[in-house]
Amino acid sequence: MIVMKAGATDTEIQNVVEEIHKYGLAADVSRGEFRTVIGLVGDERKAPFSHFALLPGVKEAMMIDTPYKLISKEYGKLSDSGNEFRPVKVGNITVGGDELVYIAGPCAIESKQQLFKIAEGVKRAGAHILRGGVFKPRSSVHSFQGLGGNGMEEAEEALSWLREAGDMYEMPVITEVRGETQVDLTARYVDIMQIGSRNMYDQDLASAIGRKQKPVLFKRHFGAGIEEFLSFAEYIAAEGNKDIIMCERGIIPVGKGKNFTRYTFDLAAIPVIQKETFLPVLADPSHATGRRDLIFSMSCAAVAAGASGLMIESHYDPKEALVDGSQMITPDELKEVIDACNRVHAIMSPVKR
Amino acid sequence: MIVMKAGATDTEIQNVVEEIHKYGLAADVSRGEFRTVIGLVGDERKAPFSHFALLPGVKEAMMIDTPYKLISKEYGKLSDSGNEFRPVKVGNITVGGDELVYIAGPCAIESKQQLFKIAEGVKRAGAHILRGGVFKPRSSVHSFQGLGGNGMEEAEEALSWLREAGDMYEMPVITEVRGETQVDLTARYVDIMQIGSRNMYDQDLASAIGRKQKPVLFKRHFGAGIEEFLSFAEYIAAEGNKDIIMCERGIIPVGKGKNFTRYTFDLAAIPVIQKETFLPVLADPSHATGRRDLIFSMSCAAVAAGASGLMIESHYDPKEALVDGSQMITPDELKEVIDACNRVHAIMSPVKR
Amino acid sequence: MIVMKAGATDTEIQNVVEEIHKYGLAADVSRGEFRTVIGLVGDERKAPFSHFALLPGVKEAMMIDTPYKLISKEYGKLSDSGNEFRPVKVGNITVGGDELVYIAGPCAIESKQQLFKIAEGVKRAGAHILRGGVFKPRSSVHSFQGLGGNGMEEAEEALSWLREAGDMYEMPVITEVRGETQVDLTARYVDIMQIGSRNMYDQDLASAIGRKQKPVLFKRHFGAGIEEFLSFAEYIAAEGNKDIIMCERGIIPVGKGKNFTRYTFDLAAIPVIQKETFLPVLADPSHATGRRDLIFSMSCAAVAAGASGLMIESHYDPKEALVDGSQMITPDELKEVIDACNRVHAIMSPVKR
Amino acid sequence: MIVMKAGATDTEIQNVVEEIHKYGLAADVSRGEFRTVIGLVGDERKAPFSHFALLPGVKEAMMIDTPYKLISKEYGKLSDSGNEFRPVKVGNITVGGDELVYIAGPCAIESKQQLFKIAEGVKRAGAHILRGGVFKPRSSVHSFQGLGGNGMEEAEEALSWLREAGDMYEMPVITEVRGETQVDLTARYVDIMQIGSRNMYDQDLASAIGRKQKPVLFKRHFGAGIEEFLSFAEYIAAEGNKDIIMCERGIIPVGKGKNFTRYTFDLAAIPVIQKETFLPVLADPSHATGRRDLIFSMSCAAVAAGASGLMIESHYDPKEALVDGSQMITPDELKEVIDACNRVHAIMSPVKR
Repeated sequence: MIVMKAGATDTEIQNVVEEIHKYGLAADVSRGEFRTVIGLVGDERKAPFSHFALLPGVKEAMMIDTPYKLISKEYGKLSDSGNEFRPVKVGNITVGGDELVYIAGPCAIESKQQLFKIAEGVKRAGAHILRGGVFKPRSSVHSFQGLGGNGMEEAEEALSWLREAGDMYEMPVITEVRGETQVDLTARYVDIMQIGSRNMYDQDLASAIGRKQKPVLFKRHFGAGIEEFLSFAEYIAAEGNKDIIMCERGIIPVGKGKNFTRYTFDLAAIPVIQKETFLPVLADPSHATGRRDLIFSMSCAAVAAGASGLMIESHYDPKEALVDGSQMITPDELKEVIDACNRVHAIMSPVKR
Repeated sequence: MIVMKAGATDTEIQNVVEEIHKYGLAADVSRGEFRTVIGLVGDERKAPFSHFALLPGVKEAMMIDTPYKLISKEYGKLSDSGNEFRPVKVGNITVGGDELVYIAGPCAIESKQQLFKIAEGVKRAGAHILRGGVFKPRSSVHSFQGLGGNGMEEAEEALSWLREAGDMYEMPVITEVRGETQVDLTARYVDIMQIGSRNMYDQDLASAIGRKQKPVLFKRHFGAGIEEFLSFAEYIAAEGNKDIIMCERGIIPVGKGKNFTRYTFDLAAIPVIQKETFLPVLADPSHATGRRDLIFSMSCAAVAAGASGLMIESHYDPKEALVDGSQMITPDELKEVIDACNRVHAIMSPVKR
Repeated sequence: MIVMKAGATDTEIQNVVEEIHKYGLAADVSRGEFRTVIGLVGDERKAPFSHFALLPGVKEAMMIDTPYKLISKEYGKLSDSGNEFRPVKVGNITVGGDELVYIAGPCAIESKQQLFKIAEGVKRAGAHILRGGVFKPRSSVHSFQGLGGNGMEEAEEALSWLREAGDMYEMPVITEVRGETQVDLTARYVDIMQIGSRNMYDQDLASAIGRKQKPVLFKRHFGAGIEEFLSFAEYIAAEGNKDIIMCERGIIPVGKGKNFTRYTFDLAAIPVIQKETFLPVLADPSHATGRRDLIFSMSCAAVAAGASGLMIESHYDPKEALVDGSQMITPDELKEVIDACNRVHAIMSPVKR
Repeated sequence: MIVMKAGATDTEIQNVVEEIHKYGLAADVSRGEFRTVIGLVGDERKAPFSHFALLPGVKEAMMIDTPYKLISKEYGKLSDSGNEFRPVKVGNITVGGDELVYIAGPCAIESKQQLFKIAEGVKRAGAHILRGGVFKPRSSVHSFQGLGGNGMEEAEEALSWLREAGDMYEMPVITEVRGETQVDLTARYVDIMQIGSRNMYDQDLASAIGRKQKPVLFKRHFGAGIEEFLSFAEYIAAEGNKDIIMCERGIIPVGKGKNFTRYTFDLAAIPVIQKETFLPVLADPSHATGRRDLIFSMSCAAVAAGASGLMIESHYDPKEALVDGSQMITPDELKEVIDACNRVHAIMSPVKR
């Protein structure tokens, strides 16, 4: 990492970047209010820091040999006027700001009518961002794969409904991108691109999505430790995109025998990631528990743990849903969750941060 | 399970019990306000329920073939005037009642002076019950095993300090019992006997402690699913002792690579156990996280998830502690935790239950 | 699944396929020596089996509602003259036949010279197939990503060396494909396309690779149960490609505390997959253990468990390697492993199968 | 650890022991053929090694600050004439010697007749040691707990049958001890005392059993990493008892979804423990897989991995068994397993060691 002097000129910065390139590394230039910091992308052990330290305009040059440095608290603090957190703006919504942000909608988009009806419901309940699955990751090739499973035309149609519903109800929209060939199409329609749990380890997808320079919601793989979760988020940051929203959604239940929940909701991951990075962290109680009757308490718990918001699957009639009916709640139930969570957040926010 | 008629007489109840014994089973007689229910302890498949159903005073007789039935919500509701929860009384403290209960104190008792100083501190901070380890379970035989590791005399001395400190600061006291030979001695000194995580699967210890008819705090093994946790609590209940306080304290972290916490705090276990049984559930953020800086947020999260209280390790000078210094907080920090948790609880309690 | 009569005509078969298409499903036509079986790809619950059963040439029509049916033992037996196993042919090598097959080579291709030197060594040691990584999946974006990390030109150059080395030393070649954009290029150069552990859940990649109709080596994700492993292999089979070689390579170590190996080598997965499917199963002791000194014993154990062969990382000078040096063995050590494994296999083969 | 000079006298050794006691530590005196080594039991950080080094007869004094030192390879080598392995003798059977050792018998003893019939069968099949459960650890208090569950008289009767069967068929006998109150009784009847998986973390039980100075079979907990497994074996060794036979029996299956086996058989634990300690290691394929049809292949795999023998549940009619019927094999099947394993062992033994 190279910290520039307060008054470093653009030419000096450009010069440092070129020096970095000479050693086969890329440069991440992060211009803060008071200071510019340049991160090295690639294996820093090849780089001559003592040489960099002597370049004009350089204040300090040091090796940071960790798998996640561009999203680290230290790097963020140095480059961003000493702020500990860096919210992600999506339209007029701020993820990681003072207010909690709620993302809600159906697991899978099934029809235009279904989507609009749910969009209206979750908006009324207080949601800020509309979700809807087009490309559904499924364990069985023989199951419904979302409308995207029927080909790119149907996918595009579903994406256009999502865009339209978001515009009508004034909510930015998010959908999951499961494969590289879906990136371009999806980027044209949505405000946030989601990388799902099953794709967390797919570094090529992360890079391709990162390059779109749109906000990314990045979900933890159910088999990943936190360090790996952060290390793969770094693939997005390495493309110069730091609008990354981390999302805890449950890990493999390890207890022997019956566990009663679909995954283990690792809520301690929330404060841990907040201490390690400057990124906002959401929680997804729907997938973590897989149980409608646990959404209320686990949503409040996630907010108490410090989550900046929640992603909750919602449907006007969960029993009718083609996918994940057992974990979806109605818009009325969503409203209760939002009200309680906001009250918990009001207690927590002055105490923490 | 045999449900007696509302006006069943003692003789009729006694008669049913004797019939049960004839089939090699034991009987758990649970007398509620309106109704008496008799649970069968042992393999119910041997029992002739159609015969039982015809005995005088019997309303209904049905087989319940699950590993935990004496602590189940259904059994509790039938026998206890329809109440969903059955608080555990310890002195004038009610665990599982309207107020949160805080258990605090040092990981290990090191000296009388250390214990009294901490007792004074945690009392002042708002704790209700005093903890202190005498028989410490340790991974290495070469580590400090608590004063109980120096023989039964030292153990008894430490237990007497604990009793004295509890009396002086008006807090019931709790300590962990690690082996069967420690049961009698410990039962003479403490109000709650704790079975620690490592001993959860030790059914002989659970039975021996259960027979003491004192409240038991029962901690989940770090490798146990929830069903196994409940099934082993049933060993205590099978001794006629239902004053069981369940405690979630973290399970093995399963994520690949570095996880940043000592265990994974499975907070969803709290509402799950509350749905499956009538027992109160506490949470132990100290062992679950192993990190002092996470105690505050994870305590609030546990309370939001519905915990009836917390068990927190506290020390006036954590750095000095012989065991677990990295996870203990000071009495002043404890007070902040208690204040915040009480405020979260105030939001949650009218909404839930 | 639809079982055709012994003498069913092509027209009858075609007719059944078209009927299946009418219900939004795809058809997998499997022509065995004596009989043709047609599998339904998609949600069979939509299909009218009683209608299918009456079509000309149909012997039997039944719903099989499992996530892996096209690779299942039952489907294989019905369609393939009653054979329990279906070997995969790669050039003149048969994976899953009477002889064990050894895949060996460097973790990552670093230079043409390095690759050829290793190829010569592993050929001499007795290996049948040459491996070499071009697109390396890595936890850190800042680590060496294989020569493919330097762009598609370098990737193609490395792939051409692999092809050349395979041709020179008469070994088919295999490399890992990490992302969809690498599929076309790689398919032009190699005989077997590998889907690595981190990409097991990437269904779009599996489908894209499946469509190439080349043999695929499919590795289990370190967080996947066996059913999920099989279910995602079904994505390849659903493209009409059954030349799938399964590979057990270790799962997340779950034991609390230090485990001494990188992963837990789940050798029981080998006979389990052989009982559930008709596919050959290899084992990768290099990644499973991460320890050079365990390769010998765990290779023999894998063969005793019934593996059809092994994939072993090998390098003339492991200390020099840029990736995974600690788990690679020299060609001389590889020869010892192969000799011992062949002797174990000679004992096992007449007893089993 | 204190290494004495080759000709150190008993008085010098005794003197060192007394010096060690002065610092609150215990001493483990290990007299090898050429040399005596004294291990320190307890927290070595309290001990003045520079002082010890100057005592008469002392060659070297050094701190070894690991949780398992008395069973470590280094300690064994120093004290035992440089031998890497230290077999455990049980009657005229040697566990960890040149020949494989087979322990077989029913999961639970149900009657004298059942036991004798099985004993006859397994002896004929080639087993060396007879097992039979009296005190069965069970997840449900309502399940059959072995004859020991009916009280100490029935327990003693079952133990006497086991002794009698062992004497009649000339096999040493082994049974599991589940609680401290069972130790004295059991020690009077059996040759090897087993600590089962569920009790691995029960340090008081390990100490109590260790003090009996009889061979102990110590099974890994299904949630324990290898280091913890070794650290708790050290509790036995700390009582001066090194006749410890380690046994791998499977760990919690971590893969998401269905796994097809009861536990994950961690065969790499076998060579790892052989590298870390001087203790013999057995494997238990019955509990590890829970499937009769996998016993054959996984037994051979365990032997190929280096196991010194196997513990296999056997019954003349598995379907009739009250406990674990699905994993038991008949004596005839056992014979096939033994024959194949011996042939695999014949290949492995000259190569390794």
